[in-house]
Amino acid sequence: MSLNLQYEEIGKGFVQQYYSIFDDPANRANVVNFYSATDSFMTFEGHQIQGAPKILEKVQSLSFQKINRVITTVDSQPTFDGGVIINVLGRLQTDDDQPHAYIQTFVLKSVSGTFFVQHDIFRLSLHDV
Amino acid sequence: MSLNLQYEEIGKGFVQQYYSIFDDPANRANVVNFYSATDSFMTFEGHQIQGAPKILEKVQSLSFQKINRVITTVDSQPTFDGGVIINVLGRLQTDDDQPHAYIQTFVLKSVSGTFFVQHDIFRLSLHDV
Repeated sequence: MSLNLQYEEIGKGFVQQYYSIFDDPANRANVVNFYSATDSFMTFEGHQIQGAPKILEKVQSLSFQKINRVITTVDSQPTFDGGVIINVLGRLQTDDDQPHAYIQTFVLKSVSGTFFVQHDIFRLSLHDV
Repeated sequence: MSLNLQYEEIGKGFVQQYYSIFDDPANRANVVNFYSATDSFMTFEGHQIQGAPKILEKVQSLSFQKINRVITTVDSQPTFDGGVIINVLGRLQTDDDQPHAYIQTFVLKSVSGTFFVQHDIFRLSLHDV
């Protein structure tokens, strides 16, 4: 499969779509639909899990409601199997906590014209911003 | 190809090896050996280039000499083609500049028992740490 030359638009569009669901407490659990039942890895603050059911469990265990998020940069590259790798640098504030910088990397895997999240790595920075 | 279950050690080992070369001004240009002539992408502060010759050009154009680097976290995941995706969060100070947070993502591609860097995305945070 060749490179998907729309990687830039796909990356930016995905990030917008994903966070609009994630950041809405009433809708948050629906991010599970971006993941595969078996072939998705998530590393959340160093804790690694695999597959949509465990990812849903993790998302549902998050105790905060409100998220105030600012995206600083989105860098995307095409992968050689038709997917997209996306690197997000941003700041977020949950409920009444301090705002923190965070990084999140997604690898979107292309399967018959659609994408799922094969890799997701999230880290909150220890430093306030 | 199956998952490489040594992904954690491979990720940590690669990061150590890569930066030990990159952070030595006399040796820095040798990081080019981690990249493929054609099948490597680098996004450096939003500027995207492809292939070892252009990556070498970029590395040689960096004007700083001394790097003071602190790795905060290294998160790795196995890819489904036997490679490893690595997310680095750290701080670095070049010459006499202020220290800055940075993020760097590498995707290592496995080819006949060895690895090359297929994807490399680097961003310096705008915020001091």
